[in-house]
Amino acid sequence: MNIKDHLSKVTEYFSPKVIGEVNDVYVKVAKIKGEDIPWHNHKDEDEAFFILEGELLFEEEGKDSFTMTKGDFYVVKQGINHRVSAEKECHIMLIENKSTAHTGEVESHVTRSIEEQLK
Amino acid sequence: MNIKDHLSKVTEYFSPKVIGEVNDVYVKVAKIKGEDIPWHNHKDEDEAFFILEGELLFEEEGKDSFTMTKGDFYVVKQGINHRVSAEKECHIMLIENKSTAHTGEVESHVTRSIEEQLK
Repeated sequence: MNIKDHLSKVTEYFSPKVIGEVNDVYVKVAKIKGEDIPWHNHKDEDEAFFILEGELLFEEEGKDSFTMTKGDFYVVKQGINHRVSAEKECHIMLIENKSTAHTGEVESHVTRSIEEQLK
Repeated sequence: MNIKDHLSKVTEYFSPKVIGEVNDVYVKVAKIKGEDIPWHNHKDEDEAFFILEGELLFEEEGKDSFTMTKGDFYVVKQGINHRVSAEKECHIMLIENKSTAHTGEVESHVTRSIEEQLK
């Protein structure tokens, strides 16, 4: 299936949807707009970001913030506090362990259960 | 780093290069042109394909062959014999377990060790 068809089913910002299962990881797509994702980390889990469309502001502790654009690929390593936001709508692909909570241990109004992400 | 920069370093067809490590998986890019990849399977490992540019002919046992185009995402499940080829140069992203041999247990002239893929 094309990534655009998967994205067309995403109706909420910050709400990742699983598009594939590859061994112990889920591949997901999400749409980001705004600053609603809280600072968080994934204690034992790396998380990969790939920009499909638009621009994503990436903030990571101990680093200068940087802007990711279409085609950029970045892995935030386990345990590192980070936050992503976007002024305009941005489409991303995520590669995460199945066990990864997308906002880490931080519960916020954008937090979605894995069941919701699998719908 | 942008996927185009990673791809610009790929000088051989069928020779995947690791662009990121996410927990137990490697994310790779590769360029495909021709029919040199042998039929193979990955006994215990799923393998994800994402088309970055061009068209990829996907053949999988028990299915009609199909053509993947830019933005298409597909996971071939563990143990299923498959083969990919491309008439014109095609750029792909792969998501594979670190332990996955890219041509399965089949050794061919395109087979590359993980050390070569990490260079």
